[in-house]
Amino acid sequence: MNHGNGRAAAVAEMRWNGWGDPAKAKDLPLAVRTLLPLLLGRIRKPEPGVRLEEVELAPSALDKSDVAVLATIVGAEHVSTDHDMRVRHSGGRSTPDLLRLRRRRQPAPDGVVLPRTHEEVAACLRAAVDLGIAVIPFGGGTSVVGALEPERGAHRAVISLDLRRLSGVLHVDEVSGEAVIAAGTTGPDAEAQLAVHGYELGHYPQSFRYATIGGFAAARSSGQNSAGNGRFDAMVIGIRVATPTGDVELGRSPGSAAGPDLIRVFLGSEGAFGVITEVRVRVHPIPRERVLESWTFPDFASGAEGVRRVAQGGGGPTVIRLSDEAETAVSLAQVGRIGKALSKGASAVTVYEGEGIAQRRAKVSGLLRAVGGTSTGEGASEEWLSGRFDGPYLRDSLLTAGVFCETLETATTWSNIAALKTAVESALRDGFAEVGARSYVMCHVSHVYPTGASLYFTVLAGIRDDPLAVWSRVKAGTNDAIIASGGTISHHHAVGRDHAPWLEDEIGSTGVRILRAIKRELDPAGVLNPGALIPTERDD
Amino acid sequence: MNHGNGRAAAVAEMRWNGWGDPAKAKDLPLAVRTLLPLLLGRIRKPEPGVRLEEVELAPSALDKSDVAVLATIVGAEHVSTDHDMRVRHSGGRSTPDLLRLRRRRQPAPDGVVLPRTHEEVAACLRAAVDLGIAVIPFGGGTSVVGALEPERGAHRAVISLDLRRLSGVLHVDEVSGEAVIAAGTTGPDAEAQLAVHGYELGHYPQSFRYATIGGFAAARSSGQNSAGNGRFDAMVIGIRVATPTGDVELGRSPGSAAGPDLIRVFLGSEGAFGVITEVRVRVHPIPRERVLESWTFPDFASGAEGVRRVAQGGGGPTVIRLSDEAETAVSLAQVGRIGKALSKGASAVTVYEGEGIAQRRAKVSGLLRAVGGTSTGEGASEEWLSGRFDGPYLRDSLLTAGVFCETLETATTWSNIAALKTAVESALRDGFAEVGARSYVMCHVSHVYPTGASLYFTVLAGIRDDPLAVWSRVKAGTNDAIIASGGTISHHHAVGRDHAPWLEDEIGSTGVRILRAIKRELDPAGVLNPGALIPTERDD
Repeated sequence: MNHGNGRAAAVAEMRWNGWGDPAKAKDLPLAVRTLLPLLLGRIRKPEPGVRLEEVELAPSALDKSDVAVLATIVGAEHVSTDHDMRVRHSGGRSTPDLLRLRRRRQPAPDGVVLPRTHEEVAACLRAAVDLGIAVIPFGGGTSVVGALEPERGAHRAVISLDLRRLSGVLHVDEVSGEAVIAAGTTGPDAEAQLAVHGYELGHYPQSFRYATIGGFAAARSSGQNSAGNGRFDAMVIGIRVATPTGDVELGRSPGSAAGPDLIRVFLGSEGAFGVITEVRVRVHPIPRERVLESWTFPDFASGAEGVRRVAQGGGGPTVIRLSDEAETAVSLAQVGRIGKALSKGASAVTVYEGEGIAQRRAKVSGLLRAVGGTSTGEGASEEWLSGRFDGPYLRDSLLTAGVFCETLETATTWSNIAALKTAVESALRDGFAEVGARSYVMCHVSHVYPTGASLYFTVLAGIRDDPLAVWSRVKAGTNDAIIASGGTISHHHAVGRDHAPWLEDEIGSTGVRILRAIKRELDPAGVLNPGALIPTERDD
Repeated sequence: MNHGNGRAAAVAEMRWNGWGDPAKAKDLPLAVRTLLPLLLGRIRKPEPGVRLEEVELAPSALDKSDVAVLATIVGAEHVSTDHDMRVRHSGGRSTPDLLRLRRRRQPAPDGVVLPRTHEEVAACLRAAVDLGIAVIPFGGGTSVVGALEPERGAHRAVISLDLRRLSGVLHVDEVSGEAVIAAGTTGPDAEAQLAVHGYELGHYPQSFRYATIGGFAAARSSGQNSAGNGRFDAMVIGIRVATPTGDVELGRSPGSAAGPDLIRVFLGSEGAFGVITEVRVRVHPIPRERVLESWTFPDFASGAEGVRRVAQGGGGPTVIRLSDEAETAVSLAQVGRIGKALSKGASAVTVYEGEGIAQRRAKVSGLLRAVGGTSTGEGASEEWLSGRFDGPYLRDSLLTAGVFCETLETATTWSNIAALKTAVESALRDGFAEVGARSYVMCHVSHVYPTGASLYFTVLAGIRDDPLAVWSRVKAGTNDAIIASGGTISHHHAVGRDHAPWLEDEIGSTGVRILRAIKRELDPAGVLNPGALIPTERDD
């Protein structure tokens, strides 16, 4: 099996039933083990999960002629119905995914196909239509919203279309500051290859080490440097897509009024309209300087006011991240350790990269001091920076210890931030309380805009029985609260299958009709990612 | 007739057969009259155009019952089949529009309907479907791409839906820095009403005095302050649209990954999918300071290199505008006067507004000096600023004098700017030369992005016979050259009917299929702006 251009060298293959590099898995620190019972009451350690070889799958629904047709396109060594390959492509990395992966009987795609080129992707889609097989596009496998579930819809089988072999920076235009990157290229591979030219993309979501350029585009990702570099949407200036009924190549120029910007139809399309095969992105010279500064505020409200002034003032930090009192207290989501700094109030991390740092920092410092902020030096920011991709490892350890842990996120206008935060926290706490589970809810603001910001929640809970069912109810109640309180159903995790029932609340019935019309036009057989993004019709 | 909330007070009603305030029409300055024969050879003064009352229209195809149905919705005083009203809604303000308006027999819509609210717009659209009447949404009437032609398509009549009564800033959220503005509000009215709160939208296209908020959105407008404030696309954070089959309300939060950004389906939709009735926009405090600085460069190439460095460096001026040698020499498009400053080389205008001006200016000055730029003080920038909305008045005077004058624009990546500029200039010159007409082509860069920039061309020509037919051929050849050389068919003038035949070259056949699918879903009867935006199907 070809595992892509040097990906293995940079980052270990992802643990089959957890996050990331198996070598990095670690036990819970003592401080955390001490703190958890205080927060959540007595924890019951669950049964250990199954081993990979113990996972029981239904037999593959692909027959020999299916495999032969697909092998003609991509080569026999790139079509697999192997047990382990199927398990490794059976979903993403939400907490429900991880809980499911502990079970013996599991759903999985009937096979995995690894095309090498745009043309091979297009041929696979045409073949899928001919064969009556559903296709789940698969990048880094990091979805946390059920976008990778092996749902076959009305079809007789479903394959995972793994894009890892579409890898590499294909072209760099140094004059224009842009690069064409194959969709299956991981974050680290893209940055390593751009760095040869002295350039950086600068998109660092928590999934960075595994997620792919195509996935960033398909799911409208937002990275930790979004205050300085913008969300991924804003970096994309061109796109190439294979659909079952024709190719798309968009983005002739950086500014255009040649009709609606159809690139935006594919950003956020989550594999339901086509498979993104190449993305043209804006790149910038690698910053030569980086300055870190941490802040503390009397409370979240004053910190949020400071962050708002910074976002509206412009020309601020590259990273700005404000933790509320609960998150600050355990510093869990920041540095992967609980109990280190049981400080009071709210805290913030700022990182400055690029030019004019002294001036930007002076301006921001003035704005933050004016709302009661106090600089606390580099320490906390350094810890955040060094551990910023490691949060998911801690979640694995918590789940193994019997502590439910999940994240969710939304966004709203500045004038609605406090009300939305309260509504989400109440929905989470009340939902867990209904089944007698104690919970601990933390929140941070990590993506800011002139008119509003994201809210990212981490929740811990001591669920005694059937955490999948409990979380399904609590999450539904939280989604209802987000919609009722004016938030978006997702700021950067996307829709997948988990949020699809709420999409109509967000974009209205006419909005859903637009998505369905595009889907019918590009994928009339409905082979692409059935059930993801677009809510199932009520009369189905 | 209700002419809207205070519009008449701010800006005079537009001249029926030319640009702007009739009181501002003026003769060509002596310097221009002296220069023109040198550039274009002997000019033949054309026959004067007809007077308004001399225009002959076909009888209105609306019958009494049509008018009665529409009057039930908007009130009898807001449905008109009056001769003058029909002529005033017969098109936009491209040079072909102005040449047509000089003729005796003219096309015109069968009537003009002026709804007051979103609900009235929606009811008008449903009525149009029932009655079998096409609808041309009409904002400020400033289209230069044929978006307002009274084309009825397959329908028995066509009405102009004039949105001037949907006027006013409806809501300001000062904490979030956003405002909801009714779609028919003109630029000056929007700014005047925002100014009461201390806020500015900051969108200043040349059409500013007449164009509307809804038109800015529907046509993906870009304003002169785009370097600082972004193009209009970037200001829009929410939108309300009436379609024949349902309402749309989009933009719950400033950052979202809840599927594709469907706001972008309506930005650039040019009235083909629905009628935009409200736009939620980002606003910012009115800048307290403004600094002007002009520059001269050895040539356009060095100026373009400087402008590129400024755009890629970020944090630069609010306005940056680089004129090539030809435009600098006559300073026509800049200050509305020809022959004032027959200087050598290329010239640029920069305007700084907002915060940190001294630092931004110091940084920009360093970048521009490094490519050979020399500061020339405030003078030329002041002249540009004071005359920046007046270019179209000069065009009227030129046309009256017998000089053909039109503008067109495109955009591309920085690495392709020089090649595209040469290709467009050659297509224009060669096209006019084919009919023995001398021409003079000027160009400027006025909208910059990290990865590229716009190119805006003004062409003068001494056409002896049938300028409409000659221009139609020259423009077609120029569009072909733009596509062949990698440019976009429009940076900010949009598609309308004039560019529709080239849209498929820009977005591909799959892209056109996406637009048609959305159109079929939202407007299955095809009543909205038939023939605009979406190219007519070849098998029609």
